Amino acid sequence: MAAYMQIDDYLYRKDNSIMLSKNRIKLIKSLDDKKIRQQESLFLAEGSKTVSDCLSFFDCELLVATPEWFSGFHQNLNVKEKVEASHEEISRASLLKSPQEVLAVFRQPSVTVPDESVLTKRLSLALDKIQDPGNLGTIIRIADWFGITDIFCSPDTADLYNPKVVQASMGAISRVSVHYLPLKPFLANLKKTAVYGTFLDGETMYGTPHGKHGIILMGNEGNGISNELESVVTHRLYIPSYPPERPTSESLNVAVATAILCAEFRRP
Amino acid sequence: MAAYMQIDDYLYRKDNSIMLSKNRIKLIKSLDDKKIRQQESLFLAEGSKTVSDCLSFFDCELLVATPEWFSGFHQNLNVKEKVEASHEEISRASLLKSPQEVLAVFRQPSVTVPDESVLTKRLSLALDKIQDPGNLGTIIRIADWFGITDIFCSPDTADLYNPKVVQASMGAISRVSVHYLPLKPFLANLKKTAVYGTFLDGETMYGTPHGKHGIILMGNEGNGISNELESVVTHRLYIPSYPPERPTSESLNVAVATAILCAEFRRP
Repeated sequence: MAAYMQIDDYLYRKDNSIMLSKNRIKLIKSLDDKKIRQQESLFLAEGSKTVSDCLSFFDCELLVATPEWFSGFHQNLNVKEKVEASHEEISRASLLKSPQEVLAVFRQPSVTVPDESVLTKRLSLALDKIQDPGNLGTIIRIADWFGITDIFCSPDTADLYNPKVVQASMGAISRVSVHYLPLKPFLANLKKTAVYGTFLDGETMYGTPHGKHGIILMGNEGNGISNELESVVTHRLYIPSYPPERPTSESLNVAVATAILCAEFRRP
Repeated sequence: MAAYMQIDDYLYRKDNSIMLSKNRIKLIKSLDDKKIRQQESLFLAEGSKTVSDCLSFFDCELLVATPEWFSGFHQNLNVKEKVEASHEEISRASLLKSPQEVLAVFRQPSVTVPDESVLTKRLSLALDKIQDPGNLGTIIRIADWFGITDIFCSPDTADLYNPKVVQASMGAISRVSVHYLPLKPFLANLKKTAVYGTFLDGETMYGTPHGKHGIILMGNEGNGISNELESVVTHRLYIPSYPPERPTSESLNVAVATAILCAEFRRP
């Protein structure tokens, strides 16, 4: 460990480079807490892929990385505060089981809900009470793959800026806008936009002459689409199991079902 | 807590029912360890859905459940040892963060690799070095949904009987046979069976005139299909992102990609 002297809030190494101070470690770790994230309007991203993707789209307040990471990163770095740290120092701040060579604190952007005139010409997703952060992150990654730019979430869906969501989205949160709003009035107010939902008594998704645009509504992990939202669904679909006549009490994971539907909607 | 007296290895309550002894809790908890699982040829399942599914297919050595669970379970119970326990007692043995009302220890069954004459007429999966237990469990659940009965795994793929795999498979491990074997010689020895793999330079999976049978090979989470296995792939496929012309450095989670391919192969 380099020797250092404390000046104000910063800790300096002998060569005058800034050390990762206890206060910064505390700030980083506190971003595991939704209240703090909302209060500060910040979020944490970890790992080279996620941080690099986020750097292109979000304002970066603090970037902590190993000297090796900095020397391998050749894009323009527009960062408020930059700290070179050893892997050991980063590990002390990281929320991951296997800390990476870089982590960064970003400012949460404000997002605007597109007008219906735009939504009718796009494919979007709506998520009702998705609880598991891993599922939400995976769904954002699926949306990004299939060129879906907006996801509408019920207010009680997992928080986009939960570090586990950021992690599972693999950088896709930088390209997909996630909106939290009460789904029932939002979807009920759409006059020209198809709302697709999956139900056991729905039509098979294969070859159903559905349009390529609209909103695919996915329900909660345990309970599917709630009674409250069922009335706003305009097209009831079903993902057939195989063989189709086999009775099944089984279900698919919500992210898996989302992916299958998106692939079918994006079929040329 | 009921009063009890210790007799031999069993602990009895005043009403002579068996208590969940420390030794049993120790056995249950030890099944988190692959070595112990292999040595004892046992595995642990937790939760009503998973345990009920497993009870129909595997020999049960020990079933621990609340009185409420027992009174709600109306199928024939063929179990070596049955223990009624409070939720608190079950929590002490459980490996889950949110312990359920039932857990059970099952004997690992022996599985037989089907002949090629059978495999050519079926759709199966092969998994190369899938690391994440959650991914393996989700893939087993996908296989079950799409009527796939056999999954061939490289020996270094996550262990089927890892409690996280059992949990994520949601009971599907009772209907899907998972075989561990060196994939290269196994796949290279198949003379009449198509082996599908996804590569960036593959043909689009949409509308590619592939058969409905064969083996879909999925590669490791980080690296895809290894060089070693690339040579045994007979059909190179690609899951197009959207829009198709958009250059993307992104990827899909391996379970998500498996689901999309299975849905396409099972298209009527």
